[in-house]
Amino acid sequence: MSTAKPGEVSTQTRSDDVVAMLRASLGDAVTTDAIILDAMRSDKSGHRSVAAPLAVVNARSIDDVRATMRIATDSGTAVVTRGAGTGLAGGAIADHGQIVLSTLGMNRLLEVSVDDELAVVEPGIINADLNAQLEPHGLWFAPDPASRAISTVGGNIATNAGGLLCAKYGVTRDAVLGLTVVLADGRLLELGHRTVKGVTGLDFTALMVGSEGTLGVIVKATVKTRRLVGGPVAVISANFSTVDDAARAAAVITSSGLNPAIMELIGDSAMAGIAAHLGLDYSGGSQLIIKTDGPSATVEADAIVSVVRSLGGRAELSSDPAEGERLFGIRRAFHPAMSEQGTVLIEDVCVPRSQLPAMFAAIGEIEARYGITIPTVAHAGDGNLHPNFVFEGEDVPAEIWSAADELFLAALRLGGTLTGEHGIGLLKRRWLGDELGPDQLELQRRVKSVFDPAGILNPGKVF
Amino acid sequence: MSTAKPGEVSTQTRSDDVVAMLRASLGDAVTTDAIILDAMRSDKSGHRSVAAPLAVVNARSIDDVRATMRIATDSGTAVVTRGAGTGLAGGAIADHGQIVLSTLGMNRLLEVSVDDELAVVEPGIINADLNAQLEPHGLWFAPDPASRAISTVGGNIATNAGGLLCAKYGVTRDAVLGLTVVLADGRLLELGHRTVKGVTGLDFTALMVGSEGTLGVIVKATVKTRRLVGGPVAVISANFSTVDDAARAAAVITSSGLNPAIMELIGDSAMAGIAAHLGLDYSGGSQLIIKTDGPSATVEADAIVSVVRSLGGRAELSSDPAEGERLFGIRRAFHPAMSEQGTVLIEDVCVPRSQLPAMFAAIGEIEARYGITIPTVAHAGDGNLHPNFVFEGEDVPAEIWSAADELFLAALRLGGTLTGEHGIGLLKRRWLGDELGPDQLELQRRVKSVFDPAGILNPGKVF
Repeated sequence: MSTAKPGEVSTQTRSDDVVAMLRASLGDAVTTDAIILDAMRSDKSGHRSVAAPLAVVNARSIDDVRATMRIATDSGTAVVTRGAGTGLAGGAIADHGQIVLSTLGMNRLLEVSVDDELAVVEPGIINADLNAQLEPHGLWFAPDPASRAISTVGGNIATNAGGLLCAKYGVTRDAVLGLTVVLADGRLLELGHRTVKGVTGLDFTALMVGSEGTLGVIVKATVKTRRLVGGPVAVISANFSTVDDAARAAAVITSSGLNPAIMELIGDSAMAGIAAHLGLDYSGGSQLIIKTDGPSATVEADAIVSVVRSLGGRAELSSDPAEGERLFGIRRAFHPAMSEQGTVLIEDVCVPRSQLPAMFAAIGEIEARYGITIPTVAHAGDGNLHPNFVFEGEDVPAEIWSAADELFLAALRLGGTLTGEHGIGLLKRRWLGDELGPDQLELQRRVKSVFDPAGILNPGKVF
Repeated sequence: MSTAKPGEVSTQTRSDDVVAMLRASLGDAVTTDAIILDAMRSDKSGHRSVAAPLAVVNARSIDDVRATMRIATDSGTAVVTRGAGTGLAGGAIADHGQIVLSTLGMNRLLEVSVDDELAVVEPGIINADLNAQLEPHGLWFAPDPASRAISTVGGNIATNAGGLLCAKYGVTRDAVLGLTVVLADGRLLELGHRTVKGVTGLDFTALMVGSEGTLGVIVKATVKTRRLVGGPVAVISANFSTVDDAARAAAVITSSGLNPAIMELIGDSAMAGIAAHLGLDYSGGSQLIIKTDGPSATVEADAIVSVVRSLGGRAELSSDPAEGERLFGIRRAFHPAMSEQGTVLIEDVCVPRSQLPAMFAAIGEIEARYGITIPTVAHAGDGNLHPNFVFEGEDVPAEIWSAADELFLAALRLGGTLTGEHGIGLLKRRWLGDELGPDQLELQRRVKSVFDPAGILNPGKVF
């Protein structure tokens, strides 16, 4: 794997200088421990960079971030901002000669306003920790990537993370009101506001969300919170003979105007893998696991059960929270189950939700053509699929990339996108132009240059 | 009033050339009728430009827009994109030497997808017309500016229009999935997607929303629609002795976790003006008009009535739709009532909703200090206030600008913004730097230049 490395220091002396400058300014926030540096070469994408970076700065404050960026700008050194390193597209992987700027230690909840339904956080706070701290206030932060127990809110924002609840409760962008950002040269910007509405100038807050560390370093965020949803909750588990039946049922449920909080689809081979991993009794077929909440939870759950049965599915309904947790535990076991089988390339296409059956059909054709199995789960209410390629060894085999390529193009043909919630990072750069087109890609590069004229912010990622 | 006019043609001959080029390419889509040109000098802001523009192009297609932009680029002529001209910040006002590019005739609903809960529209479609056409499909478009009967969806997007329903149903940005945009040089871009999620590259769709014609011309939009909300609806009308009491009640209602669809506050002097305009019996005080909808409508309405009464207000509750319409008719009569009294400068500050009482207090102090009345209504659930300055003659008197200046700074001090939903346009340019700060303002100008290097798109607006 190779990455573009503008700003890479070219001599050992020069690297030593940069580290010395960092140490002089930031003291023991700087580490060059070989084991730690090596860990920065990968994230949860399975990708690994060519060589370890120069140093890691464990920023403790906005001032630390500013000092790091000033040194980076002065020395022309590339900076990779990193939170918990849970990204699935390689966006936070660092390479030779680069500084890793870790915001993981900036993890405080700075303010909760119940009246304004917002929270102000540092970027390194773990999503689940934020929710644990919000709960006593009767609030929650809606973005819920599957990684929420281990991923940071800053990382969620940098990738515009999705999750299970998006169709009903929105993606991360919808939950960000304002951001404090350190620019490439160390200047500090305040973007957005604390208000529900605001149309002053261009929406730089939205531009920053999902920019994967290429425009600036997020050092503080004002996020929307929601009132905890009270009342009954219902969970429906539905089994279908084929993935096509399950996908059709999901499409009918959404097109009927039902609005489940969560609707996860687990395809046949994914379900078989999970069953083997968890030691479950599994007699075949695909699974939908659906949760309804809010004042209409029970009514909607009953309607969903009717839809499932009318389409030949077997449905079980439970209002027991423990049983609900057990069912979603099955879904959450998917990634561990796949990792057990080999190296995993997790894909992330998203199609208009009416096209979910067509996308599963396209996956089936690719499986047949390549003679491979592509275990797939989907956030069915969003049309967001995670087809997994499992293989042996460290490097993605050429035929797997070829199958993945067909998968992306099928998603684009169905009106979809390359990536619903993981981002472009390193893994999807080669398809970026297919989706954006050359004119938009060129404009995006130029906007990136406005923020980062020297090209030191996460070079080689996205663009 | 003066505006910057980069790209203005400098000689009569030159102007004639541009008009000739437009006519040669666009035929009778081009008009130079003096009455029509004069109408382009103003919008609903009360502002008026120095002189009439060069010509109006009534675009009938994307090709017309592209041809216009190519001629504008070739001749260095400024272009003001215009929908229905209902803007309140002067964003669509055209001046000497400029081309007005009207997209009002591009008003078709191109597609409705019930399954994917989206619609594809041309920019000139009137918001209310779109909703009328969506209704048979059981869908609606949530953004509902007070101008919805007369404003276009393209204009709503260009200004990121708000409205009455935002706290519960979001602002325009939340409802835009994808945009087709013609660049300054006539190239066509496809931004965004038809999917619920998507994180491919920088979010140029969000950047375009609210950009007030400074980055490109929106020629097509894919917008989210929602299922029509069925079930009961309740409307509460509540009268309070003072605006402070009404504002406090609104703040308590939102901080109690109640989630009304609409919560409008009408201050004392605003209510007196409306009563005089409509010939209503009015015995003083401020008014809250609140609507609840959805499955919890009745429960929430009862809870709201309790809050109102506990805070000394007099509340009436109705579940009769006709009575509800009558009550919101009172609110909608505000702008006509003010216009009857003189020339109106409508302001649009937004504060965190907990700061609504503080913002009303600040308005009261400004009224006392200047010896003026500032009739004010507010979308109270959003913290978005519309203080109105009414005066005689065409030009805003200096002391009114001075009072408005204090009002903006008070909103910023309370953590708010200059403009919740109207935009910057011409009227608020002088305060833009106060809110954005010099570094962000400079970056925004440079991003504008990436899209529009020759500075021909709506020059002098926003920046």
